[in-house]
Amino acid sequence: MDNTNNQANIQTSSISKEERDALYRVIFSRRDVRGQFLPDPIPEDMLSRILYAAHYAPSVGFMQPWNFIIVESLDVRKKIHKAFSKAHQEAAEMFEKEKRDIYSSLKLEGILEAPINICVTCDPARSGSVVIGRTHIKTMDSYSSVCAIENLWLAARAEGLGLGWVSIIEESELKEILGIPETIIPIGYLCLGKVSHFMTRPELEDAGWLPRIDIRDLIAFENWNGHPGQKQKKLLQELTEYMDFPLKLQQKNR
Amino acid sequence: MDNTNNQANIQTSSISKEERDALYRVIFSRRDVRGQFLPDPIPEDMLSRILYAAHYAPSVGFMQPWNFIIVESLDVRKKIHKAFSKAHQEAAEMFEKEKRDIYSSLKLEGILEAPINICVTCDPARSGSVVIGRTHIKTMDSYSSVCAIENLWLAARAEGLGLGWVSIIEESELKEILGIPETIIPIGYLCLGKVSHFMTRPELEDAGWLPRIDIRDLIAFENWNGHPGQKQKKLLQELTEYMDFPLKLQQKNR
Repeated sequence: MDNTNNQANIQTSSISKEERDALYRVIFSRRDVRGQFLPDPIPEDMLSRILYAAHYAPSVGFMQPWNFIIVESLDVRKKIHKAFSKAHQEAAEMFEKEKRDIYSSLKLEGILEAPINICVTCDPARSGSVVIGRTHIKTMDSYSSVCAIENLWLAARAEGLGLGWVSIIEESELKEILGIPETIIPIGYLCLGKVSHFMTRPELEDAGWLPRIDIRDLIAFENWNGHPGQKQKKLLQELTEYMDFPLKLQQKNR
Repeated sequence: MDNTNNQANIQTSSISKEERDALYRVIFSRRDVRGQFLPDPIPEDMLSRILYAAHYAPSVGFMQPWNFIIVESLDVRKKIHKAFSKAHQEAAEMFEKEKRDIYSSLKLEGILEAPINICVTCDPARSGSVVIGRTHIKTMDSYSSVCAIENLWLAARAEGLGLGWVSIIEESELKEILGIPETIIPIGYLCLGKVSHFMTRPELEDAGWLPRIDIRDLIAFENWNGHPGQKQKKLLQELTEYMDFPLKLQQKNR
């Protein structure tokens, strides 16, 4: 293990409060885009930056298990859309009558409208059979590819691009259409493009499908059922104070 | 489906170039921290903002499947550390002799040094048995919790806090120590705290464990084996131009 360049391996510049708030603004402004795509091409320098953001995601054992298949061909996207439509119909049948009508009315993908689709995959054999950090939790490699997708998503939003994650599709059909080998796992199929506008709230929240959960109901202390002590109550108070933080940051005027 | 407030559901403010670069800077400055934790307490307002960043991650069908168990008790952290140590020894045995010595010399967690640990979980039953977008790919709910972790990680970095993801542990032991119910999946066990410094490069890269992969080797077009056409070659050229973008953004002087 070579430690000689440890000195040079130290970050010398810190993140400012303005930069911190910019991160929060992007996080709170990110949406799953389905219906607002424009056909305008995505400049290559923009796409490059977004791909680097994905590639610098955390990965278990630094294995970087991801690949990116960039799909522009309308012919390929039509095949994907057909596979989506089949799965979408199957999915509708799974919902109770009342929810089924709402489900069927929702626009859930922009495969043909977005100029670029990207399939992000995971190669479990990328760096050999034994991987640091994957010895006991076998799903860690696919989690790394998910982190790459979240980075890519935030970068897209910061560039003014919309992104939608299509998960209503049979994995086997997706693999066949894109010629993905047996051993490779497709993690996310993403639609990417410029948009007419971004929504303030998630579309499913707006449609009354499910409400935003109160974050204070999602937090426990020391164990799953753990109630707050005196010190922890301070955190719950702060969470109450910060309840409008996401919306305020999103609407921030510069 | 109530569309009456669609007008009000449009974002009116756009992300500036400075904000965009701030996002990239945070993404490229994020590290998996193990050995640089300081015992200083984390202010509750800081922790609140970070938790909101996690809660505003994308989730399949807007199910928000995550919970956050905040662990501060030294007693609990000692139990977790014991479970880690056991798994860590088992893991060492799995590597070939040469890699085993390097593996054993690596500092892989900061469970006891970081003042706060957070376990992020996934509740597959959060919003009923049928979930929009999870009908065909069953792992989508755990992927949502991973997105929450990546948001939390980036927010921590923007606040100047280090975060390390501990995955060398038996899931069953983690669940027992934290009293996590049978049906809930622990996705990530995170160590969080102020740090003496951040490294420029990932520690495993610096230790010569694995190199950073050339991003151009990870990109294909139209299908898994697809080579670039004339138009796609432009993207590969841009990726070459942008090769030092991550380091430049990280070292940016403001």
